[in-house]
Amino acid sequence: MKTIEWAGNHVRLIDQTSLPGKIRFVEIHEVDEMIDAIKRLVVRGAPAIGVAGAFAVLLSVLQVSKTRGKIEQVQIDAIRISNARPTAANLRWGVKKMLDAIDGLSEINQIMATAEAKAIEILNLDVSTNIEMAKRGADFVADLVGDSISVHTHCNAGGLACVDWGTALGVVRELHSRGKILKVFADETRPLLQGSRLTAFELSEMGIDHAIVVDGAGPSIIAGGLVDIVLVGSDRIAANGDVANKIGTYPLALAAHRSKIPFVVVAPESTVDIATHSGQDIDIELRDEEEILFWNGARVAPESSRALNPAFDVTPGDLVTAIITEKRVVQPRLGERLD
Amino acid sequence: MKTIEWAGNHVRLIDQTSLPGKIRFVEIHEVDEMIDAIKRLVVRGAPAIGVAGAFAVLLSVLQVSKTRGKIEQVQIDAIRISNARPTAANLRWGVKKMLDAIDGLSEINQIMATAEAKAIEILNLDVSTNIEMAKRGADFVADLVGDSISVHTHCNAGGLACVDWGTALGVVRELHSRGKILKVFADETRPLLQGSRLTAFELSEMGIDHAIVVDGAGPSIIAGGLVDIVLVGSDRIAANGDVANKIGTYPLALAAHRSKIPFVVVAPESTVDIATHSGQDIDIELRDEEEILFWNGARVAPESSRALNPAFDVTPGDLVTAIITEKRVVQPRLGERLD
Repeated sequence: MKTIEWAGNHVRLIDQTSLPGKIRFVEIHEVDEMIDAIKRLVVRGAPAIGVAGAFAVLLSVLQVSKTRGKIEQVQIDAIRISNARPTAANLRWGVKKMLDAIDGLSEINQIMATAEAKAIEILNLDVSTNIEMAKRGADFVADLVGDSISVHTHCNAGGLACVDWGTALGVVRELHSRGKILKVFADETRPLLQGSRLTAFELSEMGIDHAIVVDGAGPSIIAGGLVDIVLVGSDRIAANGDVANKIGTYPLALAAHRSKIPFVVVAPESTVDIATHSGQDIDIELRDEEEILFWNGARVAPESSRALNPAFDVTPGDLVTAIITEKRVVQPRLGERLD
Repeated sequence: MKTIEWAGNHVRLIDQTSLPGKIRFVEIHEVDEMIDAIKRLVVRGAPAIGVAGAFAVLLSVLQVSKTRGKIEQVQIDAIRISNARPTAANLRWGVKKMLDAIDGLSEINQIMATAEAKAIEILNLDVSTNIEMAKRGADFVADLVGDSISVHTHCNAGGLACVDWGTALGVVRELHSRGKILKVFADETRPLLQGSRLTAFELSEMGIDHAIVVDGAGPSIIAGGLVDIVLVGSDRIAANGDVANKIGTYPLALAAHRSKIPFVVVAPESTVDIATHSGQDIDIELRDEEEILFWNGARVAPESSRALNPAFDVTPGDLVTAIITEKRVVQPRLGERLD
């Protein structure tokens, strides 16, 4: 079950907002529908929105082709797609890959054919990249921790965050296939509960023993010796090894550091942005206050209360034991850099 | 508006499960009703359940008096009351105060009169104790931080956690009356959202500028320099300065330590349990998994997923800048002990 598929003239997405209650698919025919789907987290997870961004460019080309519009419209759309969510490096990466592929071409049918081939290539690359990362990550983690591993994870860095397979949860999947996973603790991940809804769904499907905990519980579960390693994904990795990931990741890194267990990030090279010097240069998305103040349409907080809703936090590199990509293992805690 | 009042033959509680949507009162006539109210968090907050425990003993005496039962029943009820929630030191403290007061008395009318007077004394003492703590705490915090203070707090350590006024939020109340509070960041505090529901309600009533954040956001808000101090309450303080408080407190202490801002605990002496040597000896209440797996009766997580729901965590004393009670300021980070 892929999160994103190309159906020849439109994109089919799994609607991640209705999981695990309903497995629902959404058909995306226009670039604006894709931008909306990215903003509303119908499709989410850094690698997945990288691929979604590439297909958004393809849909823009398709619209130009059908309406006999100007090809310059694709450049304008590309900026709007890139800005749909500010933090994940992958979105801009996916858009840029597409623009680079069609750069210099002028004939619309040729542009369309090239864009379609490139988007499909990016989609397929995501799966093979994840499998590569999972193997490298599983080797690294088993070397570090041993043969009976309890993992703490945050948000969803699984197949649903990608096209298929997963990053941090892809490593868990690979370790599970090697018989080395004892248990996974999954933070529920407020405000949108990607842990309770999506990670728990994937762990259930894989048949892995797991427990959902509130986000505040992660650090004391680590202090209590219940887990051997923290494994998370990332939305952007800076040149110095600072890591942006879903809000609530940084406390796990602090706790892992104090309890002397490894804190490991698993992400594709497309998440690494060496143009971002450090975590201070990462633009953190502030989302709607209503995600916190309301629940299922009913207000939880008093009428006059406000909320502050940053979607990501930054973990400084000195707390990061290792970053595992499809190409390398980098150890920022030892002073290693990504550039 | 007091959380607990004695109406001559029954106790009147504010139902904290329905705040802030509805201000509803519950009349408690029997000891079992009070045990249930403590378990269901109709009344919650360490100081408040200390007082509720005392009144539960009074209700037990009243039942013995009305039914002409045996006075030994009060001892049996006292054990059941003490075990209603395991972590807060105050519950056992309140029960013990009552048993000590009626110890050696044999005439039921005298026992009833003594118990009633003692319970009312404990209730009144809670308010005066809080006011004392608030002044001492406000002096300490203003000395440490200055005249324009942004505070991070967790769960509800306000008037609703006590009979009136509050512990950590009592210090905020006092600092606000001195014109020194700039802003308060309140963690929503999953799973039961005491921050969004109760702390935000009290801050709104006081007219203090505040923002609710998800629990995972606290540490990065601290790292971002948005707050000057973390102020929390406590459910039990061990002799060595280790502090049990609502799950999600420990990550704030880790973050405050890294960002070099003070982490200060405000709690009455009745929360200090010198018989508890260290945090490792504190019994952490595990609550129902359904608090995490369901929302308003609807399941969030997959059917086969489990949850682990510890209600408290322990912050080691070396991360605690100061503990402020109505009698003293103790600085565990400097190696000071409570005994």
